[in-house]
Amino acid sequence: MRNIKLTLAYDGTDFNGWQVQSKQPHVRTVQATLEEKLSLITKEPVRVVAAGRTDAGVHALGQVVSFVTSSTIPTERFPQALNSVLPDDLVIRNASEVNSNFHARYSAISKTYRYTFYCDAVPDVLWRRYAYHVKQPLDFAAMQEAVKLFQGTHNFSSFCASGSSVKTFVRTVLDCRLTSEGKFSHLLITADGFLYNMVRIIMGTLLEVGKGKMDPHQIKNIINAQDRESAGPTAPPHGLCLVSVQYPSGH
Amino acid sequence: MRNIKLTLAYDGTDFNGWQVQSKQPHVRTVQATLEEKLSLITKEPVRVVAAGRTDAGVHALGQVVSFVTSSTIPTERFPQALNSVLPDDLVIRNASEVNSNFHARYSAISKTYRYTFYCDAVPDVLWRRYAYHVKQPLDFAAMQEAVKLFQGTHNFSSFCASGSSVKTFVRTVLDCRLTSEGKFSHLLITADGFLYNMVRIIMGTLLEVGKGKMDPHQIKNIINAQDRESAGPTAPPHGLCLVSVQYPSGH
Repeated sequence: MRNIKLTLAYDGTDFNGWQVQSKQPHVRTVQATLEEKLSLITKEPVRVVAAGRTDAGVHALGQVVSFVTSSTIPTERFPQALNSVLPDDLVIRNASEVNSNFHARYSAISKTYRYTFYCDAVPDVLWRRYAYHVKQPLDFAAMQEAVKLFQGTHNFSSFCASGSSVKTFVRTVLDCRLTSEGKFSHLLITADGFLYNMVRIIMGTLLEVGKGKMDPHQIKNIINAQDRESAGPTAPPHGLCLVSVQYPSGH
Repeated sequence: MRNIKLTLAYDGTDFNGWQVQSKQPHVRTVQATLEEKLSLITKEPVRVVAAGRTDAGVHALGQVVSFVTSSTIPTERFPQALNSVLPDDLVIRNASEVNSNFHARYSAISKTYRYTFYCDAVPDVLWRRYAYHVKQPLDFAAMQEAVKLFQGTHNFSSFCASGSSVKTFVRTVLDCRLTSEGKFSHLLITADGFLYNMVRIIMGTLLEVGKGKMDPHQIKNIINAQDRESAGPTAPPHGLCLVSVQYPSGH
């Protein structure tokens, strides 16, 4: 039996999220689509685990999954073999054999998400699936001031969708930055873990700062409040993309 | 009666080209979609003329149309009024009132098209609708040498889909250049007019040069041959985008 790690990219627009829905088994998910084709080429039932279970509409450029197989297909052949049968909105970028103790989710040190938005009076028709359109002008200086305040180790319960059951709301944001090129901007955030909707709520809160509805200094108070109601709205899913997952060297 | 000029952008993926198909009136075209909504908001039948009648799958960032209307809607209100009823793959970027002798197609001095492609072993899932995926490595130096040879006034019949009935195959290419950033490359071409499939055949021919199947110096011979068979294949439509249309100053 080999343990195989795959790196994949997908356009989340036409998927109902990552995870197989036990109550709605016929809904199109990335996991179900991938497992079906993996089972087809390995000729055995395959279950994969993912580094991050992305929501409906969220994209990935560097999602990572792992699975165990008794198939004799050479590891380096998996991308081509899978890509030839996968739909064109799901692409395998890389495959490698890993130690049996590697787990795509639990072995991850950190993950990097990118939230893309653009500011313009009219929508950008070619980016409408991958970037959130903000009609009104934004105060980027205020947003730059605010974005730094998310860095570090904090209780992020103000930035977690209500109803989540997790052991702890404490996460460490290793890097959080806002870059712009022309009308397009990206929030890039790397953390040791993310709470449910965390990036989208951080983005929604930063946009409130950009629109002048919140002062950048309020971010500290919002974090301290440990109350979802104190933060801004949840930005829509289509601007979000799982860019990469970091593992200990050797994986 | 006012003559109005609209600048529009569309994602050509889900349109069957620009032009209303008289034999297939129920096929989804950009022209039919736009005319339906223009008629709805002006409460009168509207016919538009376009600068360039793009093919199925071809995109536009700066298509230009003109139409005559007796509606009293202020010109500057057209973008918002139309965008509120148009599907999200068709966006009006600008509207202005023009002289009664302005015609989106016949008044155009030149048009600029962009053909986008990328070179990588695996497809880029977020660009698959807007860029042509070339798996094998390309010789960009050879392509740069070849691309210059399209500039100037030539008989481009070697770069015109067979069966076209036009008065002359002579066109003037004002600018033709290839730019690259990372894996992505763009062919940018400005001409006083384009023959049917001209940009896609030029692109297909340049890719033959990049793949080492043609020598850059052959471009001159291909132009002189005035024979479609001498040029390379027609590159697929989804990499192509009508970027802008140039008019005499004042329009």
